[in-house]
Formats: sequence, C-alpha cells, structure tokens
Amino acid sequence: MGSLLKGKKGIIFGALNDMSIAWKVAERAYEEGAEIVLTNSPMALRMGTINELAEKCNAEVVPCDVTKMEDIEKLVDRAMEVFGGKFDFVLHSIGMSPNVRKDIDYAELNYSFLDKTLDISAISFHKVLNACYAKDAINEWGSVVALTYMAAQRTVFGYNDMADAKALLESIARSFGYKYGVRNKVRINTVSQSPTVTTAGSGVGGLKDLLDFAEKMSPLGNADALDCANYCISLFSDLTKKVTMQNLLNDGGFSSMSMSEEVMKQYKKGDK
Amino acid sequence: MGSLLKGKKGIIFGALNDMSIAWKVAERAYEEGAEIVLTNSPMALRMGTINELAEKCNAEVVPCDVTKMEDIEKLVDRAMEVFGGKFDFVLHSIGMSPNVRKDIDYAELNYSFLDKTLDISAISFHKVLNACYAKDAINEWGSVVALTYMAAQRTVFGYNDMADAKALLESIARSFGYKYGVRNKVRINTVSQSPTVTTAGSGVGGLKDLLDFAEKMSPLGNADALDCANYCISLFSDLTKKVTMQNLLNDGGFSSMSMSEEVMKQYKKGDK
Amino acid sequence: MGSLLKGKKGIIFGALNDMSIAWKVAERAYEEGAEIVLTNSPMALRMGTINELAEKCNAEVVPCDVTKMEDIEKLVDRAMEVFGGKFDFVLHSIGMSPNVRKDIDYAELNYSFLDKTLDISAISFHKVLNACYAKDAINEWGSVVALTYMAAQRTVFGYNDMADAKALLESIARSFGYKYGVRNKVRINTVSQSPTVTTAGSGVGGLKDLLDFAEKMSPLGNADALDCANYCISLFSDLTKKVTMQNLLNDGGFSSMSMSEEVMKQYKKGDK
Amino acid sequence: MGSLLKGKKGIIFGALNDMSIAWKVAERAYEEGAEIVLTNSPMALRMGTINELAEKCNAEVVPCDVTKMEDIEKLVDRAMEVFGGKFDFVLHSIGMSPNVRKDIDYAELNYSFLDKTLDISAISFHKVLNACYAKDAINEWGSVVALTYMAAQRTVFGYNDMADAKALLESIARSFGYKYGVRNKVRINTVSQSPTVTTAGSGVGGLKDLLDFAEKMSPLGNADALDCANYCISLFSDLTKKVTMQNLLNDGGFSSMSMSEEVMKQYKKGDK
Repeated sequence: MGSLLKGKKGIIFGALNDMSIAWKVAERAYEEGAEIVLTNSPMALRMGTINELAEKCNAEVVPCDVTKMEDIEKLVDRAMEVFGGKFDFVLHSIGMSPNVRKDIDYAELNYSFLDKTLDISAISFHKVLNACYAKDAINEWGSVVALTYMAAQRTVFGYNDMADAKALLESIARSFGYKYGVRNKVRINTVSQSPTVTTAGSGVGGLKDLLDFAEKMSPLGNADALDCANYCISLFSDLTKKVTMQNLLNDGGFSSMSMSEEVMKQYKKGDK
Repeated sequence: MGSLLKGKKGIIFGALNDMSIAWKVAERAYEEGAEIVLTNSPMALRMGTINELAEKCNAEVVPCDVTKMEDIEKLVDRAMEVFGGKFDFVLHSIGMSPNVRKDIDYAELNYSFLDKTLDISAISFHKVLNACYAKDAINEWGSVVALTYMAAQRTVFGYNDMADAKALLESIARSFGYKYGVRNKVRINTVSQSPTVTTAGSGVGGLKDLLDFAEKMSPLGNADALDCANYCISLFSDLTKKVTMQNLLNDGGFSSMSMSEEVMKQYKKGDK
Repeated sequence: MGSLLKGKKGIIFGALNDMSIAWKVAERAYEEGAEIVLTNSPMALRMGTINELAEKCNAEVVPCDVTKMEDIEKLVDRAMEVFGGKFDFVLHSIGMSPNVRKDIDYAELNYSFLDKTLDISAISFHKVLNACYAKDAINEWGSVVALTYMAAQRTVFGYNDMADAKALLESIARSFGYKYGVRNKVRINTVSQSPTVTTAGSGVGGLKDLLDFAEKMSPLGNADALDCANYCISLFSDLTKKVTMQNLLNDGGFSSMSMSEEVMKQYKKGDK
Repeated sequence: MGSLLKGKKGIIFGALNDMSIAWKVAERAYEEGAEIVLTNSPMALRMGTINELAEKCNAEVVPCDVTKMEDIEKLVDRAMEVFGGKFDFVLHSIGMSPNVRKDIDYAELNYSFLDKTLDISAISFHKVLNACYAKDAINEWGSVVALTYMAAQRTVFGYNDMADAKALLESIARSFGYKYGVRNKVRINTVSQSPTVTTAGSGVGGLKDLLDFAEKMSPLGNADALDCANYCISLFSDLTKKVTMQNLLNDGGFSSMSMSEEVMKQYKKGDK
C-alpha cells in the first residue's frame, strides 16, 4: 500500500507460519516497499511454511541457528550480498523455553534448560547485534526491534523462565542501544506486545484465559499480530529516528490499567 | 515496644478515627518512643475521635486546614513550641475528592471540584513542606512521608480525579525532595499502599470488590493499616537515611503482578 | 511528501512561531495529507506568526483560551463545522508557569501562580478531552497526543512547578485514555521530548547547558522539533492503533542512560 | 545496639573483607540480635578476611560455590543444623563478570564469559531460592534481599554485561517472589545501591569519577555500605512485612534526578 520503507532493507527473524508476528511484519514491510531477507532455525524452516512467505515477499530465506555465532555471521554476510551492501532494519522475534515446554515449575527450574531459554530468547539478540556491529552492516539511522512481553516487569503465572529471558532481552536492547547509537546512530528498541495467539505463544499455559482477561482489561482490546506489525513498521521508518533504548508497550492500554469496569464485572460473578 | 524512634519528634496529619492509617502510624510512632503532635481539619476533629488517640499518645492536637498557608504556619510554630525546637518526621495522610463524593464521572469533572481535590490532596503537601522549609523546622536527616495509591500509575476505574491528585502528590515529593535533600538532608518519600478499609477509602466505589481482587492478586495479600504504619516507622527511623524521592509500594506484591493463579481461577468462573 | 494521514483531520494547539514543536507538527501533518485547524490563546495569536503557518497549511485559525471551557467548546464546534464532521487527532502542546517566569524558587511557590501553571499546562488537557468526549467529536481509532518532559519523572533543577504540571498532565492522559478507549477506541498518549529550543522552552533557566548535557548523554543526540513532529505523525497514523495510555520518550536514548563516556569526559575536566 | 532482629536467623552471602556491603550487613544484623551463618566461595574465603567477621559475629562460615546446586543444598542443610530449624532472612551480595575483568568491550562479549557472569551474578540467586524452597527452609514472613545496581535500568558505560546480569537478577526476584509469597509469605526484594567502594566494585572502570558524579547528583549524597546495611536490616525486620517483588533504590535520590545544580556547575566548567 504505502511506501514508508521504500529503499530500506532488513532481516526478519522468526516467521514460522502465518500466525507468526514476524510473518505479518514481513508482509507489511514488503507492502511498504522494503526489501527483506527471512531467517529462522533449520528446524523451524522444516516445520513451518516460510517458503510461502518468501515467495510473496520476493525474499531469500537463510537458515540460521541463533545460538551459533558462525551461523549469524554467515546470515549477515549473505544478507549484505543479497542487498548489495548495508541494511536498515532487523526484527528479532525469537523465544523458546524448554522449562515451559516440559511444564517444569518455576521454583524447580532445570538449569540447563534455563541456559537454553536465555541463550535462544535473549543472548541470541546480543549475538545478532554483535555480528552486525562487527561487520558494520547497518546503515546510519537504522532500526532494530525485538519483541518482548510485559511479564518482564510483572509476573504472569505460568510464563515461567520466559519472564526472566525477556527481562534479559530488554536489558540487552538498552546496553547495546548505547553502543550502537553512539557509533552509528542505530536505534534499538523492544516492543512489548499483548498476549498473542501464535504457535509459540500457545505453549504458554492458559493462554486463552489470559487473552480474555487482557482483552477486557485493555481499553482498546488486545493488540494482534497485524497491530504489532504496523507498530514495527513505524519503528523501522524515519518517523521515529530519535526513539531508542525504549521498551514500547503495544497492548491496548493493558500496562497502564490496574482495574477496568468490565474485568471487575466478570471477576465478581466468579465469586460464588 | 521498641525504641526505634526514641528522641524523635513528628507531626502526623490525617488521623480521623481508629480505622485511619494515620491513627496506626501515631500509635506505632508513640510505641517506638517518638513524641508527636496530631493534626487534622477542624471538621475532621469534630467528626472523628482524635482526642482518644491524643490521650493514648500523650499528644497535643492542633487544628489545621491544609489549604490555608496561615493554618499550616501556625501548626508548625506550635509544634516547635511543644517539641522545644525542630522535629524529625512528618506524615501526610490527606485526600479528598468532591468529584468522587458526588459521583461525577471522570470524563465530566466539575473543575472547581477538581481544584479542591488537588488543593486538599496534593498541593497541601507542598504547603506543609514550604512552611517547614521556610522555618527550617526539620532536623537534618529528618523524614517526610506522604501516603499515595497506585492509581497514580495505573488506572483504577472509579478512583476518578484522585488518581491525578496522587500523581501530582508524588511529583511534589520528588521535586521538593531535591530542594530539602540538598539544603538539610531531609528525605521525602511516598508510600503507595494497598487499597485499605478506612473512612476515607470507603468513599471509593466498589472498594470491597477491589480489596478482594487485590488480595488474591498479591502474593502476600493486601497490606493493612498496621502494615503501613510499620513501614512508615522504618522510613522515619535512621535505617533508611539515604532513601529519598521514591514511591515505595507497600502492597503485598500487587504492583509487580500481572496475573496470579488465584485471580485467574475466580475470573474464569465468572465467564458463564 | 507522504500520505500517511490522508483523509485525517485534526486540531493542533500551541503553534506560536516556527520554533514551536506544534508548528512542525502542523507542517508535517499537512504534508502527510491531513486537514487541520490551528488554535492558540488570543495573546499567543497576537504575539506569534501563526497566520503564516495557517496559509501554508490551508488551515483556519480559531482562538481559544484553554482555561475556559466555553472557548474550548466553541473551538470543537467550529472544527467540526470546518471538517464537516468528526476529526481524528489532537495535539496538545501547551505549557506555562508564572512561577518559572518570575523566577520564584520551587520551595516558595506562589500558589495562585501554581494554580495557573496547572490550569494552563495540565487541566486544559482534561478540558479539551472533556469537550471532545461530550460532543463525541473524535472518530473511532482517533489519536490524541500531549507533549511532556521527563522532569515529570526525574527532577531537573530550575524546571520548577512545570515538573508537577507535567506529572499531572501525564496522569490525565492515562485516566482519560481509559474512558475514551473504552467508549470510542480513541487513544491518548504523551510524548516526552528532549529539551528543545522553543520560545516557551527558552524560559527555563540554563536551557543551553541542559541541551549540551542531554546531547552528550543521549546516544542519538537530542530529538529536535522536527523529530518530535515526525513521531507525532506516526502516533496519529493507523500504524499505532493499539498504543494508548503511554508516556513515550523521544529523547535519543537520554532516559535510558545513567552515564555516557562523553559526558563523563567533560564532567571530569570540570573537576579542577 | 537495637533488638530489631532478635530471634531471627539468616544466611549472608558475599562478605569478602571489611569493605564488603555484606560484611556491614552481617555486623548490623548481629548488633540487632540476629544469629547468622556466613558464606562465600572457597576462593573468596581464602582471599578475604571473613574469619575475623565470623569471630565478631559468633557465626559459622560455610564455603559455597553458588554455581553448584549441591553446594547450596549443603549450605542450607548446614544452616538449618546450626540454627536448629528454619531461618528468617537471606542476603545475596554476589556479582562477577569475567568480561569486565578482562576489559572486553560490551559489543564484543565473550559468550562463555557472559554465561559465567549470568551464572554467578543472577542464576545463583534462583538456585539459592530453589534450595530454600525445596527444603522449606525459610519461616513464614521471612525476607530475602539481593543487591543490585541501577545500570539494570539505565546504561552506565563500562558496567558492561553486569547491567544485563542485574536485570536478570531483578527479574528472578520478582518471579520467585510470586511463588514464595503465595506458598510461605516469604518476601523477596532487591536493593539498588549507589555506586559503592568495595573490592568487587573497584573492578568497574572509572569508579572514582562515577562516585563523584553520583555524589553531586544525589540530594543526600551516595549511600555507603553502612547505609545499605541499615536498609537491609529494615527489610529483614517485621516493619516491612508486605513489601515484596520490589526493586528498592538506596541511592540518596540519584534515580529520581535528571540534573542537579551542583553537577551542572562542574559540567559547565569542563566545557573549555
């Protein structure tokens, strides 16, 4: 439709299938005139339907295990070949917790699982930024966004060690935002999204109930994947050049609510 | 019982009756060895039972309309006479909204009522600090606490313009905390308390339901008036000498929760 | 240039002259296809050069004293006539403190001046929203932005009672954001801007030094009036439909910094 | 002196020598009537002077490598033997970054070093809580405190990956605070301390300059190790029973300041 990202190029991590937020971001970025490279882990590439998206967006797909520095370096190199030079934006939409998958209680975390959670969901973001920074791969005034969730600030029962991973991720965004801002005017932000129905999100216990609660607490209702994609587009565009090191809530107002009339009505009814 | 405030002297605003938080603070301060002066508006003095408290705590009661600078100045003068010099702590526990009382919708506030809400609930705090500062009435390393509520950060339907008044109050604590810290090492903080059953609090619509929700959301349950009093004692004591310009949550963990298992259980039951 | 706001209509408060942030917002909104109505106080209309802007943007100018409900109501009525119906966005860029102007120390505020500060800089925002809400003047998914400054969270010496006014303003954005979100899906946010050289801003003591400090602390440097205008455009656009009740920092990263290498270098040099 | 912790028992991690914050906490806890067990890593026990402290406080010293679950379990078992049952408080004052020690730039972190930073400085806190929780070792209304630093929220150049570790630590405090609060009414908080001259702290580059800057920015000046110890005492005491999942700033007001007059004076002088 628009041309907000005309001439801009970027890498998008984490599109598994058409329920993925990253999928919507890719579609919207392409619609706004951007050139993109898609990437995901080899396993996700097999399990998902990314080739469909690649075709739609005229994008190359490069496999990348984000826990491996060499994979990330190869990805950045390949992207620069494809783009014929530096690029302008990156979306990090990656998260996974073996402790959640195996339904291990937070008080009894398996620590080698926790290492994996942190490695995949948070440290991977540092590695991506490290590779881009070392290769000076992002243009001045480029923009990097990682997706996160408010459990990093306020506990959601069942979200488990992913809350800690998201807190680490948000901290990395700030810490690296300083470095990359000073050297190349690259901005780095996190978008903290409403609970969203995705293949990854559905691993979280009781997602349906949480969605309903959040919907009724949020004055504008939950933000869905397309809302998130649109917000990311604004952050990749030149409209937000001086916004950096921020955690930006895209949640229909949930984070600024303590109690809505609608939630209270239903809550009271439950008190029988 | 203890002697944590031995030798300390302070003014306590806002004890109406034995449900008041300020009442508990006065009792606890006295128990910990403090000398106190009690104050409230002339109307509150008539309506409440403060003389009972005054007798218990061996305290003088000085009437004071906190919207009038002259009244506050007289209060501070009288307190310095009673104490034979400077004092060490102040509790501000004052809030009132005619818009809440008359059940006026937030979107249609009566602005002369709003002025009153702000004047009584927030600007009064500046006036008290102003009078103390001008008369150099607080000892070095003295401590001032004002009571507030989390609606200043996150909207609670029905709390109305009191949310805005509390936001203003918290800002005044920070702004004046800088001035008074630099000149006299006096610290100024706000304590953001769980919803609490007081005569003032019961004006807020649906308090009972809110209390129940907060109780089940908070891992430690709601903080009551005595919990708040104890926290204030710690803030008046020498244990917290370098804590200033903070908004301190005394809420059983509510503010750091997004969803507890217990709340979700009841909320789901209501979905019929 | 673009067409991001094509078909959208909005009211812009506070353009005095071409240094004003509101001026840039008006220019950018017009460039992006919006239809606008400009407004300012009768005095500001005389002192400034708004007619120049009005011509450029093909906009009507309606005088409005934002402390008077009747004036605001007339403005909203007139805007609806001009637009032929409801509108989509509002910018509130209004602030003034007689205490700052007369250089009165924060510890000794003149309280009738403080009332004016709050009335003009914060309560005016409630009145504008109240008038729009009562007349149901804003389309679904409309967007309202008020400009604020980080002194609302962290004390800046010399910013005086404007810090408290901004805290109140931000609270009103949240409180009204709930009401307007639930009823009409209208979003309300504040943008917290770097210190900016404007006619209003230059009233703040030591602005030049503050600008230099903020410039060196912020990884991307200070956001200027055009940066702010661009950010506002993104918030008026459909890209940010689920963002509400947020205070959004547009500050080159300042708010997420505690100490930069560049500031420390200069600070150390001063220690002689 | 006092008897605020009379009858209470607790484990204190991290006292290396008399410059350690943990050392002061141990001394103050003992003075307030507490019974304590001291612990540190085998290496720290050799390098430091903990036996001196142990003698003073009549405390047993138990070596414990906090990266090893077995060590922590043995420590908790031994503490329960010494105390004759459950205990009441825990202080976690542990942090170490090989990346800082080897002066590796944040943009080029060594990832196996980062794992160590996180393991020692943050995950160790989860392990300690896990062991206590599994053995039901902490009495109802017990209190756990971990020391942190504001770089977790706002970047301090040179603090490197310790900022990320502290963000993770603070998240663990919240996440586990929910679990432990619900089951045993145990509260878990972090204290975010002014930069402090300790043997560990002196590893951070430019600490002297940072101390000076923070001292002049903070209305009350920096909090030192004794101030921190006193604050911890208040948090271990029954005065703060409903305070949990909070990050509590003990910093003389630094975190609520954006610019003080004194800092600006020196900063301007450096601009030559």
